Amino acid sequence: MTTIDISSADLKQILTFCIDLAREAGKTILKGSEAILSTASDDVEEKKNSVDLVTEYDRQVEALVRDKIKQSYPDYAFVGEEETSALGTLPPLTDGPTFCVDPIDGTTNFIHGFPYVCISIGLVYKKRAVLGVIYNPMLDWLYYGVESQGSYLLKSSSSAPLKLPLAYPRHLPSLSNALIAVEWGSDRTADSTRAKSESFARLAGDGRDGQVKGGVMAHSLRSVGSAALNFAAVASGSLDLYWEIGCWPWDVAAGIVIAQEAGGLVSTSDLSLQGGEVTGDSSDTILTGRKYVVIRGIADTPNEKGGDAQKRLVKDFCNTIVDMKPARLS
Amino acid sequence: MTTIDISSADLKQILTFCIDLAREAGKTILKGSEAILSTASDDVEEKKNSVDLVTEYDRQVEALVRDKIKQSYPDYAFVGEEETSALGTLPPLTDGPTFCVDPIDGTTNFIHGFPYVCISIGLVYKKRAVLGVIYNPMLDWLYYGVESQGSYLLKSSSSAPLKLPLAYPRHLPSLSNALIAVEWGSDRTADSTRAKSESFARLAGDGRDGQVKGGVMAHSLRSVGSAALNFAAVASGSLDLYWEIGCWPWDVAAGIVIAQEAGGLVSTSDLSLQGGEVTGDSSDTILTGRKYVVIRGIADTPNEKGGDAQKRLVKDFCNTIVDMKPARLS
Repeated sequence: MTTIDISSADLKQILTFCIDLAREAGKTILKGSEAILSTASDDVEEKKNSVDLVTEYDRQVEALVRDKIKQSYPDYAFVGEEETSALGTLPPLTDGPTFCVDPIDGTTNFIHGFPYVCISIGLVYKKRAVLGVIYNPMLDWLYYGVESQGSYLLKSSSSAPLKLPLAYPRHLPSLSNALIAVEWGSDRTADSTRAKSESFARLAGDGRDGQVKGGVMAHSLRSVGSAALNFAAVASGSLDLYWEIGCWPWDVAAGIVIAQEAGGLVSTSDLSLQGGEVTGDSSDTILTGRKYVVIRGIADTPNEKGGDAQKRLVKDFCNTIVDMKPARLS
Repeated sequence: MTTIDISSADLKQILTFCIDLAREAGKTILKGSEAILSTASDDVEEKKNSVDLVTEYDRQVEALVRDKIKQSYPDYAFVGEEETSALGTLPPLTDGPTFCVDPIDGTTNFIHGFPYVCISIGLVYKKRAVLGVIYNPMLDWLYYGVESQGSYLLKSSSSAPLKLPLAYPRHLPSLSNALIAVEWGSDRTADSTRAKSESFARLAGDGRDGQVKGGVMAHSLRSVGSAALNFAAVASGSLDLYWEIGCWPWDVAAGIVIAQEAGGLVSTSDLSLQGGEVTGDSSDTILTGRKYVVIRGIADTPNEKGGDAQKRLVKDFCNTIVDMKPARLS
């Protein structure tokens, strides 16, 4: 096996490649969305149902992306959602460069035409996410980030890149001030659904005496249905925190870089794995651990460094929610 | 008291007025959003906290809208969120034309820079919502609708209006196929939070034996934090159904017209008020009833008319969720 070294100049070139690729994939996603909405209308009997159509477009976009990557980066590994699902198991990460791609993140939104749909292209190197591109073709918003080079939002192909976060990282005294993204996901068994609804009730509920036990009364909860776009929103500063159990490396690899480069902290939500403490070290255990929590950058105050505030709030968060077992690959 | 007659020609003129007004208000909303994000960053002590700033911009936008309306339509009544909150009670609707305005719908999003924020301007006449404009300045998306004249989306001030729904109304066999918007709202008492989390668990959960009792396993649940934009998304067809208890006429008046003109059905979610049946008649009881459910237009099938499918699914929905008491005006 050859050892591949990647310089920061290489990363710049890979970034240009990934941005072009994401935009090209975005065209196919838009075409697919139109096809799904019109097919479903003509075919009320649903002989060919929307799930089949999603799989078709998921595969088509993944094949496009995989082929282009194989042409330009033949020695890099590739982990895509469709390919891995067919394997039935996630191959262990190596130290070599590995593209982690979700061709269509937000497939339920894709079926319904709800405009939170994206392609997510992440590059993992030495088991760390080092480059990410997330493109939502429905809004024409493209997020990108490279390790040690910052992260940015392009609101159209012709506009200037906006540095993330979009505003100077603000103060965040407690979870009660936070706008938090949570998701219902695809695992709807009783165990998973009850763990989520109890977690969400504690996050939303008033914790004062006689009200919701353990409630932190977050500012509010949001659910838009795309892991990658939740990471991107935390990076932007328009969400304070996002938590989900059950995602895969292809859902989060790009988002992790983009959020970290914007000052965000990524952690596992199962702190029992690390002695109950938040390390803020995004090792490959986090990348493949399937229990993700990410918090935005926080300003220092006279009494507390921003990084300490992040760890304190993530710890508060993990002690509030109910842990659950992620579902297996389906 | 004078009797005012409104013709459909009048409505056209009022529509142009409201669209211009919404865009002007949108500029103030954007300016406010920038001010809030930058103030909060400089003032980590939060002497002037973001809630005060929201109230300030809410009032500023409402004053702008109210003044312009009073100039152009001096004989029309005006019900705004800020003004009514100051009164402490919702004045009863009359038969005369009444503007129902939420200056900033999605105030939590507004504070955080989460791009689901809008101004909602509805016109109620003879106790029915007859005209509505909803403008999200962050995405520059403007929805409008007039009774018997259809509803539309303008994706920018220069683009052609897109007729709603955006795709031909599709089939919707059951709630398990539906993408449903729900909200955590501002009432976080135990009663309200528990009723919501149980309702959401039933909507999301797998209802098969041994799983979530009463579960309908909707396609998924979304929460974006704006009542008006949820109505607009149902009108567009990108959400199938939206339910919320606790909104006010200014949150929903514009959305009701826009959704109905796109083939949607608006109902109370408390069917005990009407013998357990969905009437599909959006009387003023619904407009001021504070328990809203709206479902998108559905295509006819060989076995069922679309209107019957809407009523069947709304009835299924209301029998799934846990009813709750809306909070009083705060």
